[in-house]
Amino acid sequence: MRSTLDFLLYDWLEVDGLLTRERFEDHSRETFDAIFETSERIARDCFLPANRLIDTQEPEFANGAVKMPPETAAAVRTYAESGLLAAGHDFEIGGMQLPYVIDMAANMFFSKASIGLAAYAMLTYANGNLLLAYGTPAQRRAFAQPTLTGRALGTMCLSEPQAGSSLGDIATRATPDGRDFADDPLGPRYRIFGNKMWISGGDHELSENIVHLVLAKIPDAEGNLPSGTGGISLFVSPRRIVDTQGDLTGQRNDIALAGLNHKLGYRGIVNTLLNFGEGQYAVPSKPGQTPAPGALGYLIGEPGRGLQYMFHMMNEARINVGMGAAMLGYAGYEASLEYARTRLQGRRHSSGRKNAAAAQVPILDHHDVKRMVLAQKAYSEGAIALCLYCARLVDERNTGEDESAAEADLLLGILTPIAKSWPSEWCQEANSLAIQVHGGYGYTRDFPVEQYWRDNRLNMIHEGTHGIQAVDLLNRKVRVNEGAALEVLGQRIAATSAAARDFPELDEFAAAIDDAFVRVRAATQDAWSEGDGGEPLANATPYMQAFGHMCLAWIWLEVATAALRTMQESEVDSDSHRGRVQAARFFFRHELPKIEPWLGIVARRDRTVVDMQNSWF
Amino acid sequence: MRSTLDFLLYDWLEVDGLLTRERFEDHSRETFDAIFETSERIARDCFLPANRLIDTQEPEFANGAVKMPPETAAAVRTYAESGLLAAGHDFEIGGMQLPYVIDMAANMFFSKASIGLAAYAMLTYANGNLLLAYGTPAQRRAFAQPTLTGRALGTMCLSEPQAGSSLGDIATRATPDGRDFADDPLGPRYRIFGNKMWISGGDHELSENIVHLVLAKIPDAEGNLPSGTGGISLFVSPRRIVDTQGDLTGQRNDIALAGLNHKLGYRGIVNTLLNFGEGQYAVPSKPGQTPAPGALGYLIGEPGRGLQYMFHMMNEARINVGMGAAMLGYAGYEASLEYARTRLQGRRHSSGRKNAAAAQVPILDHHDVKRMVLAQKAYSEGAIALCLYCARLVDERNTGEDESAAEADLLLGILTPIAKSWPSEWCQEANSLAIQVHGGYGYTRDFPVEQYWRDNRLNMIHEGTHGIQAVDLLNRKVRVNEGAALEVLGQRIAATSAAARDFPELDEFAAAIDDAFVRVRAATQDAWSEGDGGEPLANATPYMQAFGHMCLAWIWLEVATAALRTMQESEVDSDSHRGRVQAARFFFRHELPKIEPWLGIVARRDRTVVDMQNSWF
Repeated sequence: MRSTLDFLLYDWLEVDGLLTRERFEDHSRETFDAIFETSERIARDCFLPANRLIDTQEPEFANGAVKMPPETAAAVRTYAESGLLAAGHDFEIGGMQLPYVIDMAANMFFSKASIGLAAYAMLTYANGNLLLAYGTPAQRRAFAQPTLTGRALGTMCLSEPQAGSSLGDIATRATPDGRDFADDPLGPRYRIFGNKMWISGGDHELSENIVHLVLAKIPDAEGNLPSGTGGISLFVSPRRIVDTQGDLTGQRNDIALAGLNHKLGYRGIVNTLLNFGEGQYAVPSKPGQTPAPGALGYLIGEPGRGLQYMFHMMNEARINVGMGAAMLGYAGYEASLEYARTRLQGRRHSSGRKNAAAAQVPILDHHDVKRMVLAQKAYSEGAIALCLYCARLVDERNTGEDESAAEADLLLGILTPIAKSWPSEWCQEANSLAIQVHGGYGYTRDFPVEQYWRDNRLNMIHEGTHGIQAVDLLNRKVRVNEGAALEVLGQRIAATSAAARDFPELDEFAAAIDDAFVRVRAATQDAWSEGDGGEPLANATPYMQAFGHMCLAWIWLEVATAALRTMQESEVDSDSHRGRVQAARFFFRHELPKIEPWLGIVARRDRTVVDMQNSWF
Repeated sequence: MRSTLDFLLYDWLEVDGLLTRERFEDHSRETFDAIFETSERIARDCFLPANRLIDTQEPEFANGAVKMPPETAAAVRTYAESGLLAAGHDFEIGGMQLPYVIDMAANMFFSKASIGLAAYAMLTYANGNLLLAYGTPAQRRAFAQPTLTGRALGTMCLSEPQAGSSLGDIATRATPDGRDFADDPLGPRYRIFGNKMWISGGDHELSENIVHLVLAKIPDAEGNLPSGTGGISLFVSPRRIVDTQGDLTGQRNDIALAGLNHKLGYRGIVNTLLNFGEGQYAVPSKPGQTPAPGALGYLIGEPGRGLQYMFHMMNEARINVGMGAAMLGYAGYEASLEYARTRLQGRRHSSGRKNAAAAQVPILDHHDVKRMVLAQKAYSEGAIALCLYCARLVDERNTGEDESAAEADLLLGILTPIAKSWPSEWCQEANSLAIQVHGGYGYTRDFPVEQYWRDNRLNMIHEGTHGIQAVDLLNRKVRVNEGAALEVLGQRIAATSAAARDFPELDEFAAAIDDAFVRVRAATQDAWSEGDGGEPLANATPYMQAFGHMCLAWIWLEVATAALRTMQESEVDSDSHRGRVQAARFFFRHELPKIEPWLGIVARRDRTVVDMQNSWF
């Protein structure tokens, strides 16, 4: 994987260009490489060996606490000690001030080794990121700082049992705590009451504290909760009360573990139902006062803007979900490639005939097996490239010149639903192919691929389901600013196809991607051509699937062009570059044509789903 | 499900027409209905309640024996007591002489309730079927008869650890047992030595005996095994030795349980590695003689024709695999439909806007959810219809007039790879959609859909992998007799589209299916247009995917036509018939267009996979 990563970062994305920027000027390719080597080592030594264990010994609810194998704590601790929890944060608060794209690349090693264990770090990093962006200096010191070293780990508490995708319906309430509630040094102090569902990392003893970021609603004077998402505020609510330095006061907050969710996969990270403010741990408003029920929480920013702040965290989390899915796909690709190279069975079935007397061959020599391995390469490496591209855009948005930063922001908006959804869907398919390559063995727990397949199935669900991503894309991202983001994407695609035409063997694909963009743009216009008539969102998912395949073809054309250019400049023929070009070819020939049936549904505003009556099922 | 089944059997396939045939003349719709009611009851009372239990308490290897929860034995016993193990067999041997299509329909209830438990009966039935077809009268009495009542259960022992899909490479040897080996009343007596892998139901105490059907090779005079599949013979080898009446002699045969496979799903049926003839249970050739190593086995039919006999069993087993996959798809459809009807969340997202003050709606009202439920209906009911169609062809082949029987045989040949592969692939997708409809809950073990998804993943692997089916289709079934089977299929499709044109709302689909067949036939010719040049089999899987989608569109047009005709004749509008027509519409509009990208690969003899070099990965 490392050589693939180096190629994508340095030869394709040219991330060393970031080193000239002020924020990153203390870095060099050497410091990046050192990060990767450390990450690869820790992932190999602490994460990978525990990956099956954390699946078979999933977290248990015992005596009101979470019980996990000790390997989980060891992995999280080693990760924290590496300093990676603060990789992207400022030097002045103890961070490494690494580019986001390098941080994401480093985390690829952990996701591949054990997605369930890596999730603690991902969540904690995103949590700290949000607090650093929107918290007061006191909140940053008390709550964010401890997460940078792993003293505290973080969560995001959005869903409730009755409100998953429909966040506007959350019923958790936050009421001002005392007449002096606005004067607390940690921010306006509230009491939180409600149940939060699907909270990853919601309760454990892996760290001395857990910092929850909680969406809740502040009732009006009559005690009614404001309706819709505009009524949502954001609170930071620690598992254990801290002082202004972030040190434990010894007081537990009123957040009780109500139960664990027993998942199909992704079992390394505990998933919880938390009850806020049920009174199990009554807590004083300030030390020395009388304890009362209600979890203490401190308002972040302004009331009613909670979802907006949370999306700061969510958007990067969505790219991380995509990268996690991609790494599961890549792990299955590596495992099945290794199996297909070493498992001898049967003979070449070329020319429609077999010769029983010939020697047996590695199954990679069977075309159908080779097809399945090549498809996995096309899906997983393509997904990795897309997510790294998006990470590079995050750096551009954060540190680029004004115009370039604005363009990156537009592109990120339109690409984020794809970076989240496409790897979730197609690297799941890659994992299914990895099982298939192994035959019966792939269906057993003696090989890792069935776990990858189970783990990956979460990714189309969490951090905004597939359907939510599709609506976000078709209803919002391609429409805002009169389609400005789509136009910028079109310019990028045109630049890619122009560059690809330097290489005659890519002409076919340059023409195909230009055509695909024209078709996608036309279908977008067709979808909305009757305004809201014809209910275009009924076909949002096929639209997103087509859009995603177009984006991946574009990314593969970028990668193939970079591979050919690298070979041309070095004047050395390279198997791995040839493989990249062939994977691009596979994507253009076997995958891109799939956009037509999807776009057809959208373009003709197909009413088949809309017309289906519930009583007809 | 029962009303769907009744419609498909009586209104569409008109199976009551079989009642005029001599073999079935003692039956009536009432006896069929009684069978279905019994099956539905046993499945509901004994199979369904145990389905999660047999997943969480999978078979264990303890003290050399298989340990299973008692619910497994209870379910198998109740099934056997119902008489269904002999459902299709002759009255004279204690069977019910039911049409095959009715037998398969009855088994749908069991597959839906617990595929893992139903598998014991499926295997046993196929086992008895083979013995009754090819065994001597003595073999039928000693080995087949006990399986009709469940005294014995059956297996098929094909694969070996080093030979899965490549059966020509099996190394299990069978040597004549003594000079009088040919004189045994149970058939020519051999000693079998070798290891058999992936043997479902290979060892247990659910029945007093287990009847193994074993593929092995008879060495030549120099002790060499004949190469290839032409050297394979078939033996019946019981776990416990029996006399000519099929009664136990008290002697154990030399077949040892070497281990269990720990599967991703489908855990109700134990899956074993068996060692034949390793000497753990030395056995005398005849009672009273000195025990010797080597499992006793009796040759079935002629040497070297073992695979041919086994395919008698395999072909029907493949349709059964398809039906099992379809029932898992249907079970997920039912579960997610129920969930989508009762789970309230969010508001209608029509017109691109939400009204937060409106009441929450069942999630089935969200178009993307409705799309996922409708897709499941289209996949699973379509797959059920296809498998029942094939089962009806089996009856035609077995009891029809000569010409009609020959045509049924041709059609069965070409449809069997589709009946096996299509439900395995697309009802797996249906199960993924069932998870998605449930959101986070679908990812937990509190709901049944994750188990269906895991269970179903086996179906693309066992009884001939997906790739094996594809090669069978493109290399054999569409080519034999100068494409005679494809021509017959084309005639059926033409008849279907002609009948559909009686209903103007089906005109669009009649034209589409005619066109699809023309395209598939052309791609078939293109694939082979350079003879074996261009290695057409490299694209066998996309070919099969296109072929399968064409077949399902044809089946849906059949079903939609029958639904409209039934409404027309009864002059009553019916929600369920409207639903069938809408599912057909979904299939034609959302699914059938997918054949183009698949066929394109085949038609242009795409070389992308062939040209990929192993060193480029």
